Amino acid sequence: MAAVGRTCWVIAEGYIPGASSMDTHAMESHETACILNAGERDAHVSLTLFFADRDPAGPYRLVVPAKRTRHVRFNDLTDPERVPRDTDYSSVIESDVPVVVQHTRLDSRHEALALLSTMAFPAE
Amino acid sequence: MAAVGRTCWVIAEGYIPGASSMDTHAMESHETACILNAGERDAHVSLTLFFADRDPAGPYRLVVPAKRTRHVRFNDLTDPERVPRDTDYSSVIESDVPVVVQHTRLDSRHEALALLSTMAFPAE
Amino acid sequence: MAAVGRTCWVIAEGYIPGASSMDTHAMESHETACILNAGERDAHVSLTLFFADRDPAGPYRLVVPAKRTRHVRFNDLTDPERVPRDTDYSSVIESDVPVVVQHTRLDSRHEALALLSTMAFPAE
Amino acid sequence: MAAVGRTCWVIAEGYIPGASSMDTHAMESHETACILNAGERDAHVSLTLFFADRDPAGPYRLVVPAKRTRHVRFNDLTDPERVPRDTDYSSVIESDVPVVVQHTRLDSRHEALALLSTMAFPAE
Repeated sequence: MAAVGRTCWVIAEGYIPGASSMDTHAMESHETACILNAGERDAHVSLTLFFADRDPAGPYRLVVPAKRTRHVRFNDLTDPERVPRDTDYSSVIESDVPVVVQHTRLDSRHEALALLSTMAFPAE
Repeated sequence: MAAVGRTCWVIAEGYIPGASSMDTHAMESHETACILNAGERDAHVSLTLFFADRDPAGPYRLVVPAKRTRHVRFNDLTDPERVPRDTDYSSVIESDVPVVVQHTRLDSRHEALALLSTMAFPAE
Repeated sequence: MAAVGRTCWVIAEGYIPGASSMDTHAMESHETACILNAGERDAHVSLTLFFADRDPAGPYRLVVPAKRTRHVRFNDLTDPERVPRDTDYSSVIESDVPVVVQHTRLDSRHEALALLSTMAFPAE
Repeated sequence: MAAVGRTCWVIAEGYIPGASSMDTHAMESHETACILNAGERDAHVSLTLFFADRDPAGPYRLVVPAKRTRHVRFNDLTDPERVPRDTDYSSVIESDVPVVVQHTRLDSRHEALALLSTMAFPAE
């Protein structure tokens, strides 16, 4: 299958709830950027995070191998710095080959889960 | 009505919760690709699934008749193989005529339902 | 303000839950097509509904006045026929002037609400 | 990083629930327009609100500084007028430099939260 998608994507909404009512990995409050690389070449991806009142953080670098998907949890990013909780942010995702990016949040601050998802904006 | 839409769509987020708090068909945790074929010719559709750590699965083949919609549950796909639960995946949906694809998940792991939906990305 | 948007939109996902845990108008399970007409001329809008196993229904006709928004509940459509509950459908929304359409569902089958929303697909 | 995005965005769905089951700022029922300005110049942004049965309100004016994000709560807008609760509306967001806009609602009318989000429509 040929590569599909774009090389620059934006998620304007970002917010990791600092609390969770359940402590399993699956049920912890989290934000995810799901990145599909359907093509034949590995994707080298850079994430940059923007905040309300400080300079951007990043780039966070990661690889999405050829013909693989990677659901990146913002909670797990630590290099060059941890993503602050309970803090508004946005993200820009750049890749050297076309990919497709979708944004999802699971909020388990209360026992009743809440979910949101949207395709990211293809900025290129 | 003329055919509307595109012939290649991507859903980067995919995840079927392995548990459900209710066991009716309507309330079981599920993921759906809703495919509308508004045109006059049947749509022959192929789904390919991508994973984090193995080669893609598929193609899964199905028909959406002319002037019909089909809400395809990933839970129900079995040929060539069942879709694993509690596992990250992405999907690429190809059709021989224009269609429109929207992605929805119902998560009933807890009694309080959670829903997400987004239009798929038109990759063509 | 000039007219913004497009003249043909698609919502591939459609499903009105037949049950509600609360019986106020605001909390009844419902599906909505939110239509903004930001321009100076009234929009004459036609909705056509597509199903899995029968011919399409419609057109449903309505007006969105100039510089107004109208949040159309599929639950309230009755002419030419009522929209069936607990039934998969899709919708195509056509207008004689540019509008913008967003799709939302509130599911109150359980006391814990669930919400989904996505921008419709601009098919034109 | 170069500016990314567009200069006119539309959110067709708008509705601030008038009630909340929790009274912290984070958990109050609210609607947000998340605006990312990834570029080097401050963005001067105007919001106009459209209603079902009255003339539009606004413009509401705000600045999103260069390389910053701003998650604007419609609940907090007061100039030129407060946004009515329990009322259908739509919004058009215009900027003098490219930005990206995403729409989110948190509904806490019941203790179980509900969330929705979608990328706004790039109308330009």
